[in-house]
Amino acid sequence: MLYGALEAGGTKMVCAVGTEDGKIIDRIQLPTETPDVTIPAIIDYFKDKELKALGIACFGPVDLNISSPTYGYITNTPKPGWSNTDIAGTFKKALSVPVGFDTDVAGSLIGEVTYGSSKGLKNVVYITVGTGIGGGVMAEGRILHGMMHPELGHMVMHIHPEDSYKCRCPFHDHCLEGLACGLAVEERRGLKGKDIPDDDKVWEIEAYYLGQAMVNLILTLSPERIILGGGIMHRTFLFDMIRKETKKQLNSYVKTALLDDLNNYIVPASLNDDQGILGCIKLAMEAV
Amino acid sequence: MLYGALEAGGTKMVCAVGTEDGKIIDRIQLPTETPDVTIPAIIDYFKDKELKALGIACFGPVDLNISSPTYGYITNTPKPGWSNTDIAGTFKKALSVPVGFDTDVAGSLIGEVTYGSSKGLKNVVYITVGTGIGGGVMAEGRILHGMMHPELGHMVMHIHPEDSYKCRCPFHDHCLEGLACGLAVEERRGLKGKDIPDDDKVWEIEAYYLGQAMVNLILTLSPERIILGGGIMHRTFLFDMIRKETKKQLNSYVKTALLDDLNNYIVPASLNDDQGILGCIKLAMEAV
Repeated sequence: MLYGALEAGGTKMVCAVGTEDGKIIDRIQLPTETPDVTIPAIIDYFKDKELKALGIACFGPVDLNISSPTYGYITNTPKPGWSNTDIAGTFKKALSVPVGFDTDVAGSLIGEVTYGSSKGLKNVVYITVGTGIGGGVMAEGRILHGMMHPELGHMVMHIHPEDSYKCRCPFHDHCLEGLACGLAVEERRGLKGKDIPDDDKVWEIEAYYLGQAMVNLILTLSPERIILGGGIMHRTFLFDMIRKETKKQLNSYVKTALLDDLNNYIVPASLNDDQGILGCIKLAMEAV
Repeated sequence: MLYGALEAGGTKMVCAVGTEDGKIIDRIQLPTETPDVTIPAIIDYFKDKELKALGIACFGPVDLNISSPTYGYITNTPKPGWSNTDIAGTFKKALSVPVGFDTDVAGSLIGEVTYGSSKGLKNVVYITVGTGIGGGVMAEGRILHGMMHPELGHMVMHIHPEDSYKCRCPFHDHCLEGLACGLAVEERRGLKGKDIPDDDKVWEIEAYYLGQAMVNLILTLSPERIILGGGIMHRTFLFDMIRKETKKQLNSYVKTALLDDLNNYIVPASLNDDQGILGCIKLAMEAV
């Protein structure tokens, strides 16, 4: 029996089928256009695959409250056409299979703790630093939804003393995403991220904010590991800069054996950018 | 059968016995001196009480890792004489009963979700704002320990634009506790907290930092409720000021029905300062 996986992003939709041991048998990628174009194309891909279940990790915000009338919906997104779209219900009905549903970042987190190098850990945070910044949280072995779901990207930041950039978040004057997302890095220099040299001061500022986020996550969630993914983190020299900032800003207030080994505490994703789709496989398995 | 409760604070030890429905039968209070004086006095209180189990909520930092050789210890405290004290093990041995053990703030949280007005909620944060600032977290129905336990009091703060006070934390230049604990409030004015008038500007600054903490907690933990206790929160006019700051700083980025009703979201403790001792009763029950 095969499981279906839909990694639903604001730019592209990755559709795949796989087995419960995490082997991907087939996959396609579609651009995210409007729901009336994109959803039928996805159904078309899955309809002959004889799925046992489908797992969806979706861009948000999404409604994860199982007792809500809009459970499984994308709620209020700036992405044109997608607000109030019943994602989970539409596929459940069209494919007649159980559907597992969570946020895109929770999907990547689930992939890493199920099939990746964080397997077996019970307290893990997954942060994606790309166009925006988002995060998923596992706390004591359970994916944390709480009242809605975490929105780690918007935590309040202390401003770097040499940073005069105006936070680009339309909601906040000094939040992590507005100061440290990929677009903020690029705007500071008027260059594409990939064209900014490794030794540019902008990366020092970036590491300061991401290190500060690590400190706040350690203090509030006490995770056993923090995984950093997303386009910005493909600049791998940032990992060491972020670890150094974390150590400096935490200043030994919390002392644990795990924090003594920061190289193994703040880590890149381990599944070659398949963490999201593999998380969907696991979501599908859990829906059965 | 009776359960024993020990609320072990840095200033005083509250010892009590109670029943599983949360009725306190008897209690005493002892000053926290050195372990060789205080521990025998506590044992003396409990030894004839025919306890079924004992629950301890303890000042910290403490070791909560059940597989650690120092599980149940106070680890590295500035409180003279108490570093490396085996609290849980000493009472377990002396009283020959099962012992439940957690942080002081987790104890208050457990009291509130077991016997208080937050009964039935699965995602709750309890913050105490007193001499220091600490917090306990329940996530998806479980008390969050993670790598160690949360240390919410030290989250990084954006400085209030009119605040020139030098953060008093020996570890951090701009953390919540260093800027907003009771001692910081008093140092700003050279007055005892109770003598500072309600309309003093210092409370506006206090509400700014506590509101900022609420925002970060909403974004990282997505709780269904945040309970504020501790000496500073006996200045009850602060609740509305904190709610206003929370709303202003979050700026509708997260919208939920619970957040629409902030009076019922950011709330005082509900158990007349018995939340800690009642949490210990529950910890004792769980240890059986």
